[in-house]
Amino acid sequence: MAAFVEERDWQPFHDPKNLSASIAIEAAELMEHFQWMRTDELPAVKDDPELMNEVRDELADILAYVVSFAGTMGIDLAAALEQKMKKNALKYPAEKFKGKYR
Amino acid sequence: MAAFVEERDWQPFHDPKNLSASIAIEAAELMEHFQWMRTDELPAVKDDPELMNEVRDELADILAYVVSFAGTMGIDLAAALEQKMKKNALKYPAEKFKGKYR
Amino acid sequence: MAAFVEERDWQPFHDPKNLSASIAIEAAELMEHFQWMRTDELPAVKDDPELMNEVRDELADILAYVVSFAGTMGIDLAAALEQKMKKNALKYPAEKFKGKYR
Amino acid sequence: MAAFVEERDWQPFHDPKNLSASIAIEAAELMEHFQWMRTDELPAVKDDPELMNEVRDELADILAYVVSFAGTMGIDLAAALEQKMKKNALKYPAEKFKGKYR
Repeated sequence: MAAFVEERDWQPFHDPKNLSASIAIEAAELMEHFQWMRTDELPAVKDDPELMNEVRDELADILAYVVSFAGTMGIDLAAALEQKMKKNALKYPAEKFKGKYR
Repeated sequence: MAAFVEERDWQPFHDPKNLSASIAIEAAELMEHFQWMRTDELPAVKDDPELMNEVRDELADILAYVVSFAGTMGIDLAAALEQKMKKNALKYPAEKFKGKYR
Repeated sequence: MAAFVEERDWQPFHDPKNLSASIAIEAAELMEHFQWMRTDELPAVKDDPELMNEVRDELADILAYVVSFAGTMGIDLAAALEQKMKKNALKYPAEKFKGKYR
Repeated sequence: MAAFVEERDWQPFHDPKNLSASIAIEAAELMEHFQWMRTDELPAVKDDPELMNEVRDELADILAYVVSFAGTMGIDLAAALEQKMKKNALKYPAEKFKGKYR
């Protein structure tokens, strides 16, 4: 990602404000594919290869900006995710939710 | 991520519509940290350890949902990113932008 | 809205970039209330007075920033909406959709 | 707005979840116009008639969904805004901010 950005002289645009807005913009584009779908229509998404191609590309756009954000700000993504999931495990204890929705 | 979700019986909630909305919600929370900052204030973000901790957690939340989305929908994230960056390289040729902003 | 902003010396922060991000942030907060709801659970939202109070406040926050954006940028909101709905009527002709979903 | 939706049989799609996502999607499209702009470039936006036309349309799209949301959920927008601004006036007292940024 860093090489891609440098080859285009885009570093000055890659500040945390612009990159967070870019993640939000790409997330909205992903969401747009499901904008008017009912919950019961969603299992069929996987069986629509054309839609899945678009969805895959939108998800990649989000990830590209997440990786750019991490690179620009010196964040270790793997460590950040591991650390946050530990917090989430304490915040949402499994025993509080398991079996709750049956 | 899949284990975390299964331990809480959250699979029924993890459809592509909900997960794309979740990415957008977390992206907005990341963006909120820079909501009122001017461009010239952004380089100082890196020097604020407390802010950086919050930012790291928000970025991890986004990534967690991106990974969940990929897992739920059977998307290979690494392949999707590689494929999309090839498309981006064609759409935004380096020679069209390099040196443009000096 | 303009008086509220001026009384707090917030005019320098109310540029179109910050205000559009603010609309997006408030929209995400509204969306969060329905993040994990199935389509068939949504009719019950209206019968939940506490939830409706929160939803009303979030919608007002969005509208407040829409009005601020319009005021800051000199946009006549009523005229903009009327003009856009005329475009939408041409883009989505009623006869193309009426009866389509039965 | 209600007539526009009814003429197209779109009422079943206009639930609070879909409409809040639609507001977020349109907000992202408005934000996209300023995605890579620096703070010091924003005053020139008003002098760009073509950009202002696009911005006006995006803002109208957001307002259209805000109005649809209010209509669908039985929310009085004017009352909601007035009530929320009273809360905001208490939350952000003018004397706490006035003169703070000089």
